[in-house]
Amino acid sequence: MPRQITAYSNPLIKRVRSLREKRHRREEGLFLAEGLRILTEAREAGRIPHYLFFAKESARHPLVLALIAEVEAAGGEAIETMPDILSKLSGKDNPQAVVGVFAEFATPLDALDRSAANIWLVAERLRDPGNLGTILRTGDAVGAGGLILIGECVDPFSVEAVRASMGALFTVPIVQSGWDDFLAWLRGGPGQLVGLSLDTDQAYRCAHYTAPTFLLTGNEAQGMPDAYAAACDLLVKIPMLGKADSLNAAVATAVMAYEVLAQQRG
Amino acid sequence: MPRQITAYSNPLIKRVRSLREKRHRREEGLFLAEGLRILTEAREAGRIPHYLFFAKESARHPLVLALIAEVEAAGGEAIETMPDILSKLSGKDNPQAVVGVFAEFATPLDALDRSAANIWLVAERLRDPGNLGTILRTGDAVGAGGLILIGECVDPFSVEAVRASMGALFTVPIVQSGWDDFLAWLRGGPGQLVGLSLDTDQAYRCAHYTAPTFLLTGNEAQGMPDAYAAACDLLVKIPMLGKADSLNAAVATAVMAYEVLAQQRG
Repeated sequence: MPRQITAYSNPLIKRVRSLREKRHRREEGLFLAEGLRILTEAREAGRIPHYLFFAKESARHPLVLALIAEVEAAGGEAIETMPDILSKLSGKDNPQAVVGVFAEFATPLDALDRSAANIWLVAERLRDPGNLGTILRTGDAVGAGGLILIGECVDPFSVEAVRASMGALFTVPIVQSGWDDFLAWLRGGPGQLVGLSLDTDQAYRCAHYTAPTFLLTGNEAQGMPDAYAAACDLLVKIPMLGKADSLNAAVATAVMAYEVLAQQRG
Repeated sequence: MPRQITAYSNPLIKRVRSLREKRHRREEGLFLAEGLRILTEAREAGRIPHYLFFAKESARHPLVLALIAEVEAAGGEAIETMPDILSKLSGKDNPQAVVGVFAEFATPLDALDRSAANIWLVAERLRDPGNLGTILRTGDAVGAGGLILIGECVDPFSVEAVRASMGALFTVPIVQSGWDDFLAWLRGGPGQLVGLSLDTDQAYRCAHYTAPTFLLTGNEAQGMPDAYAAACDLLVKIPMLGKADSLNAAVATAVMAYEVLAQQRG
């Protein structure tokens, strides 16, 4: 029988709310995900929250009931609470039906099987959590094997990244790596490293991609360092017909990823 | 000689800061844009701020000096202030070198010349300001004639939308219209209306686009109403190989827009 929490001052509410900050996520090894759609994706991917908060009004929904049952079966706790408190947990005016607290997870570079997918996404010093989540969502859509984060990237477990991923956080493996380690691993087997660049005449639509293709996206403001570009097997450019010289990083990644997908599928 | 403002309590600072809220933007007909890159885009597009706030440290930069001169020549006011106050105006920890206050502007549907561009972007009930700004940025990159916003969309002059547009707010015409008015205007001349849909077998890469192409993007959560889909000349789908059934709206728009561009350029 789920317990009820009706007070903002409840210590668990305060603790869960603190997970909106990276420092607390690191201390606890926990993060927040919200919304029935995302939590159902998580459940289907085998990720069950330690804590599940739900509003009484939502408890009749069959997907919420299924979540509650799985959380309790896995030794977690399902907690009935009020829409106001759910809003406070998620930081949105419009409260979600459910908020879950999950254990953080990580995939080591060595655990990746590069033959498992034809497209892999690589991002370096990505700073915007919305971009990170959106790139994960695109990765899911193109069947990417994973997202490899190079250097100081924004935390993939931030509330904004989880939200923008629309559940892909739970389905697309995420690796965090240094550049040297990544390059050493990449060169230990087949793999074409493709970078977006302004300093090339090679149009992305006319290039030839060979699987497994690793698409490298640089920092939003600065692009990638020259040394990273030099390490690429192929540099390509996306046409820019207007005043600006770059696309949003998640948009550029998606335009590239769908071109590679189209070529690979013939 | 620019005046200085060093107090948070200054009425102009309070007034400018209030422009972060839509209600105040509507009352004043003014909006905020921040950062040297975006304000320089604005200047090149002939949009000069009524007020320009800059930090003393930035005033040696030639682009800042050029902005100050143009603002003063146009009868606006350049105001030297402190990094802390600039941070407060932009709502970011990392203060921008400059913050500008601009008059809102609008393009009426009737003012669009459909023969001026081969690609036009149309979005209905777009809710996320980051998506709106990112779609403008993509519109600039593909040479779109404009962005037509249908129904209750997020405010294109919100701080987040302006920021995500990276200046494209000033270079890509924006029209706000009802659906019926838009459709009547569209059918008054040549124009292929293309919608993304899950309920079609027509792959977006195999469809034939004819200029001017109007790409319709639906609401982030619900997609477009059936009646809008029925009004399209062509419905296409983007392959989704993973667990999710949709892409981020700005990503989907970009993948489509670059496909149309590639076909049109041969």
